[in-house]
Amino acid sequence: MENGNHEIPDNANEHCPGPQSETAGKSEACEGCPNQQICATAPKGPDPDIVGIIERMATVKHKILVLSGKGGVGKSTFSAQLSFALASKDHQVGLLDIDICGPSIPKMLGLEGQDIHQSNLGWSPVYLDSNLGVMSIGFMLPNPDEAVIWRGPRKNGLIKQFLKDVHWGEIDYLVVDAPPGTSDEHISIVQYLQATGIDGAVVVTTPQQVSLADVRKEISFCKKVGIRVLGVVENMSGLRQRLADLRFEREGEDVTEWALQYVKEKAPELLSLFGCSDVFDSRGGGAAKMCREMGVPFLGKVPMDPLLGRAAEEGRSCFDDQRCSASAPALLRIVEKLVAEIL
Amino acid sequence: MENGNHEIPDNANEHCPGPQSETAGKSEACEGCPNQQICATAPKGPDPDIVGIIERMATVKHKILVLSGKGGVGKSTFSAQLSFALASKDHQVGLLDIDICGPSIPKMLGLEGQDIHQSNLGWSPVYLDSNLGVMSIGFMLPNPDEAVIWRGPRKNGLIKQFLKDVHWGEIDYLVVDAPPGTSDEHISIVQYLQATGIDGAVVVTTPQQVSLADVRKEISFCKKVGIRVLGVVENMSGLRQRLADLRFEREGEDVTEWALQYVKEKAPELLSLFGCSDVFDSRGGGAAKMCREMGVPFLGKVPMDPLLGRAAEEGRSCFDDQRCSASAPALLRIVEKLVAEIL
Repeated sequence: MENGNHEIPDNANEHCPGPQSETAGKSEACEGCPNQQICATAPKGPDPDIVGIIERMATVKHKILVLSGKGGVGKSTFSAQLSFALASKDHQVGLLDIDICGPSIPKMLGLEGQDIHQSNLGWSPVYLDSNLGVMSIGFMLPNPDEAVIWRGPRKNGLIKQFLKDVHWGEIDYLVVDAPPGTSDEHISIVQYLQATGIDGAVVVTTPQQVSLADVRKEISFCKKVGIRVLGVVENMSGLRQRLADLRFEREGEDVTEWALQYVKEKAPELLSLFGCSDVFDSRGGGAAKMCREMGVPFLGKVPMDPLLGRAAEEGRSCFDDQRCSASAPALLRIVEKLVAEIL
Repeated sequence: MENGNHEIPDNANEHCPGPQSETAGKSEACEGCPNQQICATAPKGPDPDIVGIIERMATVKHKILVLSGKGGVGKSTFSAQLSFALASKDHQVGLLDIDICGPSIPKMLGLEGQDIHQSNLGWSPVYLDSNLGVMSIGFMLPNPDEAVIWRGPRKNGLIKQFLKDVHWGEIDYLVVDAPPGTSDEHISIVQYLQATGIDGAVVVTTPQQVSLADVRKEISFCKKVGIRVLGVVENMSGLRQRLADLRFEREGEDVTEWALQYVKEKAPELLSLFGCSDVFDSRGGGAAKMCREMGVPFLGKVPMDPLLGRAAEEGRSCFDDQRCSASAPALLRIVEKLVAEIL
């Protein structure tokens, strides 16, 4: 800042270093005044619900947060495929979607339109397989097109309820899919889960600078609130598609049929090649370089694979789909690395 | 929902139909209780700051919100290029970035590291050209890697201050780049700006179903709060790149040099073709179909163009870049349609 005269001080972003420093609720005073020392609508004094959360989480062995700086980097796709991969290795897995404004997990697990059941043990997750349970606000909305227009405190309340009231039973992994950014949901999930132990966070990004800039913020958030960064995944790391699966255009006209025939006749060796494009500008060195700079593990790259996107849209595991050959092996290596980090 | 016995009722998302229905602040009561009738931390009674905002906005002819359901759909890229396009037509333009957790506008306008000045007229925007002024929290952060961990009320305060204290002067267009979703920032910007008149919102999406699902929510938000939807932009609508600009791989090995030589010798006609890939699954009919269903204007498609991404990363206008031939003409048509909608 050039001068310190305006109302937001240089260290404005240090006023709220996360849950640890939150004290008595001052939300009313904060409203309209960005210059408050305390900005969080934290509950007053020790929270009795935390006890309930600790009890509920006692049957959950590992808790992994999946975070991203920006949206649209494939975080939910990763959370979904991570859960599929863990479940396929015979682990008991829970997947909790706390993206309240845009819950995409039900769709990505093929569970749209499912209902949540309640028993005397609490809310039951929706089970995809006997060892993969899913919970999302997406299951609670009567109309999927309806906007969920909630301010922070209401979102915090639901997250607390998810942690306190969902009956996961004995599970090995709870994967928590968080919304992008570092806001109410993130402060809350960390605040509520920290007493129960969180193994750490996986941060998903795309290779370009604007996305990495936001990921640096996400990692600084993790450091501030004391969450271990298990590693960073570079997603959509360049398009990789069989040449034979591309469409071809000449002057705006689709000439795919002609082009493939022409290739078959004149240059058949091309058909076995993958065509690759650096869709997002990675000249800055991508996530690997950022990880070295920030001292956090780099878990690997997942190429942009339209067939992985299609599996996600259709709620399928890419590991059961032979066609996801550009992405599934890369994802599997990442999951194995991640599990090794946790153990 | 299968039974109505749990604590979140079926119509949970209707409790907060937006700013109009917000009454006295109940944030303390909301904390921990998703079942409250009122969930917003709205100010009590009429807000004196609104008068200041009305005065400040009296010199702004048109106000356009740029929204998206999901992040990472290119919303900020669109806001930036829309501002470039309007400024290139000799309009006076202001660009306000209210994405507080991940402000990417400074980078996308090539203004990283710039300072905000203060005068007796208020905060001065950072000027890219004499007719394009920019305001973002990105200009206020001493360290771009630092996380801004703010709960809702604090964000609302800053948005209010942006609207009340920034001296835009006489301008034709104020483009407001909002964060993804429908949360505090959105309720606030609408609440604060509505008395001054908002022309409407442009909603940016990508073609796949998960993104469109979130966009439907965004449109329902606009309808609820009484904001006109000026139109929907389908971004990243398929990759389109010259075959000669692709890289080629065989069994994980880069064979681009060999492949291009082989094509030149055996099948030279391929070199003039564009290789296209439906990166995101658009078999659901994409944004055009959704617009028809929801009765809102469809503004057009912008192909995924790595060179547009590069222009955005480098803070340049794509309209000044000959190489953005796959995207710039499409963007320009959309801007023209949008301006026609407003007038």
